[in-house]
Amino acid sequence: MSNTTTINAFAANQAGGSLEPFTYEVGALEPNEVELDVLYCGICHSDLSMINNEWGMSEYPLVGGHEVIGKVAIVGADVEHLTVGTVVGLGWQSAYCGHCESCDSGDENLCSTAQGTIVARHGGFADKVRADADSVIPVPDGIDLESAGPLLCGGITVFNPLVQFEVKSTDKVAVIGIGGLGHIALKFLSNWGCEVTAFTSSDSKRDEALSMGAHKTLNSRDEAEIEAAANRFDFIISTVNVKLDWNRYVNTLRPKGRLHFVGAALEPLDIGAMSLIMGQRSISGSPVGSPSTIGKMFDFANRHQIQPQVEMFPMSRINEAIARLKSGEARYRIVLSNE
Amino acid sequence: MSNTTTINAFAANQAGGSLEPFTYEVGALEPNEVELDVLYCGICHSDLSMINNEWGMSEYPLVGGHEVIGKVAIVGADVEHLTVGTVVGLGWQSAYCGHCESCDSGDENLCSTAQGTIVARHGGFADKVRADADSVIPVPDGIDLESAGPLLCGGITVFNPLVQFEVKSTDKVAVIGIGGLGHIALKFLSNWGCEVTAFTSSDSKRDEALSMGAHKTLNSRDEAEIEAAANRFDFIISTVNVKLDWNRYVNTLRPKGRLHFVGAALEPLDIGAMSLIMGQRSISGSPVGSPSTIGKMFDFANRHQIQPQVEMFPMSRINEAIARLKSGEARYRIVLSNE
Repeated sequence: MSNTTTINAFAANQAGGSLEPFTYEVGALEPNEVELDVLYCGICHSDLSMINNEWGMSEYPLVGGHEVIGKVAIVGADVEHLTVGTVVGLGWQSAYCGHCESCDSGDENLCSTAQGTIVARHGGFADKVRADADSVIPVPDGIDLESAGPLLCGGITVFNPLVQFEVKSTDKVAVIGIGGLGHIALKFLSNWGCEVTAFTSSDSKRDEALSMGAHKTLNSRDEAEIEAAANRFDFIISTVNVKLDWNRYVNTLRPKGRLHFVGAALEPLDIGAMSLIMGQRSISGSPVGSPSTIGKMFDFANRHQIQPQVEMFPMSRINEAIARLKSGEARYRIVLSNE
Repeated sequence: MSNTTTINAFAANQAGGSLEPFTYEVGALEPNEVELDVLYCGICHSDLSMINNEWGMSEYPLVGGHEVIGKVAIVGADVEHLTVGTVVGLGWQSAYCGHCESCDSGDENLCSTAQGTIVARHGGFADKVRADADSVIPVPDGIDLESAGPLLCGGITVFNPLVQFEVKSTDKVAVIGIGGLGHIALKFLSNWGCEVTAFTSSDSKRDEALSMGAHKTLNSRDEAEIEAAANRFDFIISTVNVKLDWNRYVNTLRPKGRLHFVGAALEPLDIGAMSLIMGQRSISGSPVGSPSTIGKMFDFANRHQIQPQVEMFPMSRINEAIARLKSGEARYRIVLSNE
């Protein structure tokens, strides 16, 4: 078996460019790596950000794709816990240093030298992708593979804080923004046992939010509705990238409540310290989760039959799929298929 | 024994006024109340804020004083856990509703209808003061009574977050602002087992901070020093009332670190969400602590012989004491004595 592989991918050749077929060769697999045959790959807004070089760290040709469901095709010489044929997930991170305090503590997702799957490496908009074996997570039997890709970035981003901040099943929680991340958050939280409120400004999403597990909806642009919810929530997760009047949302927190950001507007948060002090409230943020937490998420999603709601496109129609994502009309996440 | 008492106090008769002798009568003690003979009473900056009606909730004549060490003089008919002669502390809160979710959870300090000791009631700048028995906490034998008053507001304000947010003895922590609150925080944290850094802009306080338990000091006005401390602290407690460049301090937090406010500038915090997200960091605030936590603080202070550093004035020289507080020269807290 040769360790040299030809990978057929789609790449942007410049910032904001359309995706063109791009073939590249990779050499011998590192002993701690695996090579995956990509079955499905979700498209995330951060793929667009990287294609557009919004964060100033893109290298071209740029192969996006970091919500991968793949089948292990080759395992490196030192990999003992994965075998050829195992179906695994690969998310935003493809490698960890393995020896920093975060890695040693099971917080590999906070490793300051973790490698992004599409940052100075080529991602999953391709027929194959490589990653460190420690960064891919076996997908348990029972998970619907077609829709599972978005769990690897969008899903874990909203699941991880429930674990990290010990959201309780008796909590009253809210989700701001019902999109790619928010709709999965509704499903996780309702199955977590919580009372779930969806904040959305979209009339068309209200009924959908209720069907996905929300018990109530509030209009995120209606000041009076938000004010009437004062002192109601133990935990709010914000998935939006726009600036809202965050002090209004802080006031909807109960004592000891937390407003947690997984989406970020560039404008500062503008929150008053006194409203934090008076109710012992917290503001926080978090990125994706560790491999261990991704494993917990798979298990939880499997037990409760939680699936992202996706629209499928063949990989060959990737530019059409991206246009659909940009339209804002996708319900709620787009997945590319190599089948 | 008569239940009617004449109380000799010092009161401001108008916003910003000097304190004048003020005598008032109180009627029969409520069944759940106690009356204390005030032994000592600390002066807190919030006494000045109330005297000056900075928060718009002052009523005149206003008797400040909410860092009381007193001896129980009369107990109400229903009070079974306190007896005449017991030495107790009374802080910012004099009564709790006793039946809200916060009260039921042992978080009486977050009770939304808790009564402030100097808000629409008369406080401890007096020979006597009354409070609900549930709001006064016995002072254990061994605590130095003369210096203990400031534990009841300044002390518990910095002790409470260590309990609430489970600061670990292995944590690297920092205190911003070495004054009435900050100097007690240094003593608590060094005895908690932490590595302690003091942020101060005062040259004269650096050596004092080291003598009070800080292992290191950093100049809170030196941007380069703060930047060099990137990624260092698990927990930072800010006691200052001025606007600092909070994003710089957020960057000194390690992954999962927390910047906690017990002092509040009126300006919004202006913190970027992305720096919270990337390191799973938190921002939070808290007010004073519950009776249970005050009890824990007394026990901890007693075991480690922790005392606020105080300057003593007789109660009769209260205006002189307040002028000293306003000068900013007090090291570090002022206590009035009735002896």
